[in-house]
Amino acid sequence: MLLNKIEEIKKNIKVWKKEGLTIGLVPTMGALHAGHLSLIKKAKETCDRVVVSVFVNPIQFGPAEDYDKYPRTLEADEKLCKENGVDIVFAPAPKEMYGDGGRLSNDILTYVCPPFFYVNKLCGKTRVGHFDGVCTVVLKLLNIVQPDYAFFGQKDAQQVIIVKKMVKDLNVPVKIIQCPIIREESGLALSSRNKYLTEEGKKDALALGKILNNIKACYKKGITDSVALRETAYAYLSEKHDLEYLEFVDRDTLEDRTIADNNTVVLIACRVENVRLIDNIYLGEN
Amino acid sequence: MLLNKIEEIKKNIKVWKKEGLTIGLVPTMGALHAGHLSLIKKAKETCDRVVVSVFVNPIQFGPAEDYDKYPRTLEADEKLCKENGVDIVFAPAPKEMYGDGGRLSNDILTYVCPPFFYVNKLCGKTRVGHFDGVCTVVLKLLNIVQPDYAFFGQKDAQQVIIVKKMVKDLNVPVKIIQCPIIREESGLALSSRNKYLTEEGKKDALALGKILNNIKACYKKGITDSVALRETAYAYLSEKHDLEYLEFVDRDTLEDRTIADNNTVVLIACRVENVRLIDNIYLGEN
Repeated sequence: MLLNKIEEIKKNIKVWKKEGLTIGLVPTMGALHAGHLSLIKKAKETCDRVVVSVFVNPIQFGPAEDYDKYPRTLEADEKLCKENGVDIVFAPAPKEMYGDGGRLSNDILTYVCPPFFYVNKLCGKTRVGHFDGVCTVVLKLLNIVQPDYAFFGQKDAQQVIIVKKMVKDLNVPVKIIQCPIIREESGLALSSRNKYLTEEGKKDALALGKILNNIKACYKKGITDSVALRETAYAYLSEKHDLEYLEFVDRDTLEDRTIADNNTVVLIACRVENVRLIDNIYLGEN
Repeated sequence: MLLNKIEEIKKNIKVWKKEGLTIGLVPTMGALHAGHLSLIKKAKETCDRVVVSVFVNPIQFGPAEDYDKYPRTLEADEKLCKENGVDIVFAPAPKEMYGDGGRLSNDILTYVCPPFFYVNKLCGKTRVGHFDGVCTVVLKLLNIVQPDYAFFGQKDAQQVIIVKKMVKDLNVPVKIIQCPIIREESGLALSSRNKYLTEEGKKDALALGKILNNIKACYKKGITDSVALRETAYAYLSEKHDLEYLEFVDRDTLEDRTIADNNTVVLIACRVENVRLIDNIYLGEN
């Protein structure tokens, strides 16, 4: 069932709650791929009812980012959701979520602001305000759907850490479930933004996964110095790659790790054909 | 019943929810007076179960403000609550609400930030960060107690407008009920901070209510120009009064009103004996 209005979905949620059913939310920006489907599958296993939200959230895009050209494929998304047993696809318009007017600023809207320590690094360094926008929309969706569980991909590692922190800090009554990265056979991490890449660009993009795998292999061989591990990346980079960051941080707290350990996550952001791609790997067990 | 732990109160809430009972929350900083009791009474009339939170919220006090000396009278508060049929008094320690360490800053904690337009005026102008702290703790309490209704006094007019805005912007599933200002027979608006005043100070403090009543009387006689109305205040002010602001704004949107109308609220903040007092009056019907 496709719903666009907050009041409509709240009515459905109310009925489910009365029946004592557990609810899972998979928040997405649409353009669904096998990564999203793995979240939906996990939600189906965990909960009685599953809601997928499809909302390209304007307030998490910077003015120079790809909000307008971000892929929108609602018809296909709805079909995929139906095939995978999703109970409700919630696809509100920006106006339904943020009200009238283009004034989507913190001058006129209440924002949820994750801590500077979690934000002023990695993707947050270049995407100023991005995680404020993410936390604000995620909290709105959690308040609308009131799920018992919400499902996020490890692909956006900083995002899921920040969302977990928000849930803890604000006592949001939901359990966040993190699901592993899904990759193409080639090793490329699935992303809706892969659609922007040419075939050649897709090949160049494999460098991200290769760099991470090689770092993990070196770590397993006993190299723990992050500077030394970081240097192994250059073997995979060419003039086709515009590296934004390659960082070693604690997978729970985002604290920098000069010496890598089993709780370290290695994160990379790199532009290929001017498409911003991210990927990451846990050095310990998932 | 007095509870200090989040997990304890959540257990109780869960049972009530299962029984289909409606829940009312009256968030307070303790030092309960007849103003709070009017909120409790309203909550009792509206809901099956009533929770009163008693928490002097450190993150809404500025470094130069009265956090340490703010009156704490938990035993008396609990007794009053019991006498007035409150089901749970929730009085957590700061550590229970914000975790370890004194680092209660937005460097390390997720904050709820109300819009600048609502904050950069009236009390927010001098109390920088105050309403971020208020919204953050109110949202935490709402998430913990999950009430159907939450009760706020009109006394803190800017606060209740900002809380309503937060609830709307973040789709928080609660209805905010605003209750009228309760006054001593003398006309002094009840406030926990009145305890700081000497008997003489209390007399000087009556100026606030007199100024507001006189402005309303002038408005009823047809004077709508806010500059003219504001000037009537000086007749009541002496060197005992340190006026911080006397403003005319829309009672829903906080927009300035140069010409007063029936939707205008007049707000005053004034120090007497260095105690910061606030009061307000609706020019139209309550």
